[in-house]
Amino acid sequence: MPYELHYWPMIQGRGEFVRLALEEAGAPYIDVARQDDDAGGIGPMLDRLSDPDNPRPPLAPPFLRDGDVVIGQTAAILLYLGPRLGLVGESEADRIWTHQLQLTIADAVNEAHDTHHPVGVGLYYADQKAEALRRAAEFRAERIPKFLGYFERVLAANGGEHLVGTALSYADLSLFQLVAGLLYAFPKATAAALTDVPQVARLHAAVSRRPRIAAYLATPRRTPFSEDGIFRRYPELDP
Amino acid sequence: MPYELHYWPMIQGRGEFVRLALEEAGAPYIDVARQDDDAGGIGPMLDRLSDPDNPRPPLAPPFLRDGDVVIGQTAAILLYLGPRLGLVGESEADRIWTHQLQLTIADAVNEAHDTHHPVGVGLYYADQKAEALRRAAEFRAERIPKFLGYFERVLAANGGEHLVGTALSYADLSLFQLVAGLLYAFPKATAAALTDVPQVARLHAAVSRRPRIAAYLATPRRTPFSEDGIFRRYPELDP
Repeated sequence: MPYELHYWPMIQGRGEFVRLALEEAGAPYIDVARQDDDAGGIGPMLDRLSDPDNPRPPLAPPFLRDGDVVIGQTAAILLYLGPRLGLVGESEADRIWTHQLQLTIADAVNEAHDTHHPVGVGLYYADQKAEALRRAAEFRAERIPKFLGYFERVLAANGGEHLVGTALSYADLSLFQLVAGLLYAFPKATAAALTDVPQVARLHAAVSRRPRIAAYLATPRRTPFSEDGIFRRYPELDP
Repeated sequence: MPYELHYWPMIQGRGEFVRLALEEAGAPYIDVARQDDDAGGIGPMLDRLSDPDNPRPPLAPPFLRDGDVVIGQTAAILLYLGPRLGLVGESEADRIWTHQLQLTIADAVNEAHDTHHPVGVGLYYADQKAEALRRAAEFRAERIPKFLGYFERVLAANGGEHLVGTALSYADLSLFQLVAGLLYAFPKATAAALTDVPQVARLHAAVSRRPRIAAYLATPRRTPFSEDGIFRRYPELDP
């Protein structure tokens, strides 16, 4: 039975971290809210989110259904999928460390989001643009270098090719996606930061060339980045 | 060998979620940065954070050392400690679900923090007070009810006493801490919200009465909430 991914259909968003893992593994999955038959679309996704018969409901998309199991929270979904997709090591130490890296990537993703929504998710960008200018300045100057510098240190201590061990893990895929998003949203600041973290830049390039990832990125399933997603290109935020 | 918790010594902060688990379990631990001998204090904590011999460094406190293992990220620490302290179920499904709840609590904690630091962590509150007023208004009106309502739904579906199964888990302890922090930072808004989520209010009270938690809360180890922590009481943010 294929996995069922539930996420907002028009954006990459947090669902993309799950999608990349499924695509790299060649795992069968249905992107429920992107189906246009009776079983798909946003309506069935929201129905499942508020399903009164599910005693373990997620708070929000993305969530994954695997048979009777429904799991929300991007990092928890990857914690579940990692062993099943062969995208994490066997030992508990490797699994916890891979997860720790994923949580740190999630922190960076949250901060990237908050650059354009510093005051609140319920307001439009136009209504918090002044605050966004201030927050983005700190994000560009302090936070992008801090996060990327951390992953550079981790890569350097592990030989440079992978974040964990000697094989690809979901953390490598997620770091690729973080860098891709930052390059979209803050092209100048990120390009500058990447010159100081050559192993991060190399991992980003290497992941994009993996056969299944390269094939995926060329399909319409890879929704383009846009100003509706987490990573948004507002030129005034990356002057 | 006792666990070694590393966290900023003067605040509860994110370290408190780990402390509550260790205290409830009666586990031996050293709060490294709170020791005043040669092996303790902030210096040794920061030395370990930047230890060049650790190929798997955390990005920031809190982090836990257990023999040769060093783990950062609050939720990852609890993922590691849960089975060891008897604070999570045996099945994979229970463990993933407990972790999913922890990650949702972490989201709420992050948002509570950002009410007083919407523009950036590198600035003082006084320099982003106008933005904080706007962000806190949305947090009070929309986000506190949304998060607490979600946990009420989860508790109701599970009989009301615990979030997961029939025994205390680290998610219960963390929900206690979230409610305690919200009651400190937003006493009016949180008291009002709690009237709609009686099972969350009851869990908060029940955890505070557990013998080891009650004993811990009465010690100086339970640092008071303050305006240096995640949860801050600025009256203008809860008018």
